[in-house]
Amino acid sequence: ISRLSEWDYPIFQLSDCVKDFILSKVSYKLFNEVGLFETFRIPLPEFMNYFHALELGYREKPYHNRVHATDVLHGVYFLTTQPIPGFYLNEIHVESNFISETENEPRTSFNRPSFAADDSYGIMGGNFPALELMAMYTAAAMHDYDHPGRTNAFLVATHASKAVLYNDRSVLENHHAAAAWRLILTNPKNNFLRSLDAVEFKRFRFLVIEAIIATDLKRHFEILAEFNAKVNCDESPGIDWTSESDRMLVMQMVIKLADINGPSKARDLHFEWTRRIAEEFYEQGDEEQSRGMPISPYMDRTCPQLAKLQETFINHLVAPLCNAMVTGGLLPGTWVEDDGDGDSK
Amino acid sequence: ISRLSEWDYPIFQLSDCVKDFILSKVSYKLFNEVGLFETFRIPLPEFMNYFHALELGYREKPYHNRVHATDVLHGVYFLTTQPIPGFYLNEIHVESNFISETENEPRTSFNRPSFAADDSYGIMGGNFPALELMAMYTAAAMHDYDHPGRTNAFLVATHASKAVLYNDRSVLENHHAAAAWRLILTNPKNNFLRSLDAVEFKRFRFLVIEAIIATDLKRHFEILAEFNAKVNCDESPGIDWTSESDRMLVMQMVIKLADINGPSKARDLHFEWTRRIAEEFYEQGDEEQSRGMPISPYMDRTCPQLAKLQETFINHLVAPLCNAMVTGGLLPGTWVEDDGDGDSK
Repeated sequence: ISRLSEWDYPIFQLSDCVKDFILSKVSYKLFNEVGLFETFRIPLPEFMNYFHALELGYREKPYHNRVHATDVLHGVYFLTTQPIPGFYLNEIHVESNFISETENEPRTSFNRPSFAADDSYGIMGGNFPALELMAMYTAAAMHDYDHPGRTNAFLVATHASKAVLYNDRSVLENHHAAAAWRLILTNPKNNFLRSLDAVEFKRFRFLVIEAIIATDLKRHFEILAEFNAKVNCDESPGIDWTSESDRMLVMQMVIKLADINGPSKARDLHFEWTRRIAEEFYEQGDEEQSRGMPISPYMDRTCPQLAKLQETFINHLVAPLCNAMVTGGLLPGTWVEDDGDGDSK
Repeated sequence: ISRLSEWDYPIFQLSDCVKDFILSKVSYKLFNEVGLFETFRIPLPEFMNYFHALELGYREKPYHNRVHATDVLHGVYFLTTQPIPGFYLNEIHVESNFISETENEPRTSFNRPSFAADDSYGIMGGNFPALELMAMYTAAAMHDYDHPGRTNAFLVATHASKAVLYNDRSVLENHHAAAAWRLILTNPKNNFLRSLDAVEFKRFRFLVIEAIIATDLKRHFEILAEFNAKVNCDESPGIDWTSESDRMLVMQMVIKLADINGPSKARDLHFEWTRRIAEEFYEQGDEEQSRGMPISPYMDRTCPQLAKLQETFINHLVAPLCNAMVTGGLLPGTWVEDDGDGDSK
């Protein structure tokens, strides 16, 4: 658990050590690291109750389980707290070092020692109000709550009760968000948000829901296009960090990238995640076969196509997302020495 | 019931006559009128079962009850079947009089005698495939199913279970659609759609859901702006009736206008609808007061503001919608003689 500031931290070893407590332990550590307990006066018993209830609500599926949720939480934490070469902090936050904050100004994590980066590096979390960081981390922990190990397309095609309930629209994502929120709203013992004022609570709830719904891959190209139009086109204006809607778009990109980060990890981690998603797909393929439906692509265990699955997944989803974030200057890393003249680039 | 081709037909008298059967009787008459029973081989027992189950699922609320649902169904029927001055039928449909239809071509109502308009008039329904007309009528009948007589804002503010379930997004509209569809999908005796093939069924379900969700007034300005950009701006391309998305936009405008048609009706009808919505608002105001919440605008029965309510409603919602449809050339009516030279305009 001490290696959470590494991209390739050994999550499966951690999972073997802490078992059912992986999501609550990592959530505690990361909330603590970013100072969210003090900033929002979060009561520890309610926090632990809630995050433990949350992790117990993840099912024992091959892929969409509490280890994946922990991995996405880590991804969001990493992207928002690790130094990014050439990233500039929004001047408004820099100024707030010098002027006194009023009651109504949003609380930030900018002054935390862990958010200070050296020289020509910057930390993305410093540009987000602390409430938005907390929303991102909470959304990551919630984002696949009670996942049944079947795809939206399968639930829609079989007229599953959840698909009927959600009118075929972001069926799983709506369910994850609603079911995870119900745990907080129906049991005061889980309400770690009780110190938030009404305005903060309302905005926090809105942001968490938006972030979770953004993990529906059906909206991938729409969100990516919006980000690229803002950041990566000629004459694009770039991110306006004072704009709530711009920050929300970045938040959606961050949770999306954290959600599909497998192929960007070290080979053994990538391999294990691929093995797990393939097994979950095969279980769906088995059910499709037993229902007399055509077996979906990559879901037939008698005809494994792992390489092709990953090639499609990487080329169409992961790589465009990573490229957009790199071009937008939003990925952590280290300056690369140019071998010619020693200039950094 | 014989006066359904009149805009100001006497719905409250009809309601007194046919009681609990108002929605199913009117649905039957209108489906029959447009030829949907033959076109889609709709089994009559299942149709009657379903529409009667649907009307019984409307609650006895002052406004959002089965009479309102019937009124919206009538509005959609009227707008799609009554002659529009200067409306031109899409040439593709005109041509299909002469070429034989293939299996895959959508079924239309174009050739029905009731869809033939005289001279310089046209009927909007002739430009919609019959499946889309049926989707509009079905959506209208379903669109407020099981309405609890409270607003989305109230459900969200009180963290009502439906608001949690639907993540505060189009809470009522999602519920109406999901609950009304559940009646069809869980009981074969209600499945009047059983003769549709899989492609037709899927598209029909999609269109009905889109039409119902479009009745969320939170989306009013977005839908109106999209329509005006397409139809009513300089250099706007106009409706492309061969485009599915253009037809869906018109469909959304039609159901939206039918949903808030009260102020465009004869004075006695407009007055009675206003009395009913005010009473429903007051009941919410009473509950707000008993919960110690601030009473919402127009919902305090000790301080009636009927005139101001209707002025706001008409100026901000109804009039812009009507104007957009008039300018787009989509409202039924009769040519007005120009008093100067007798030219029609």
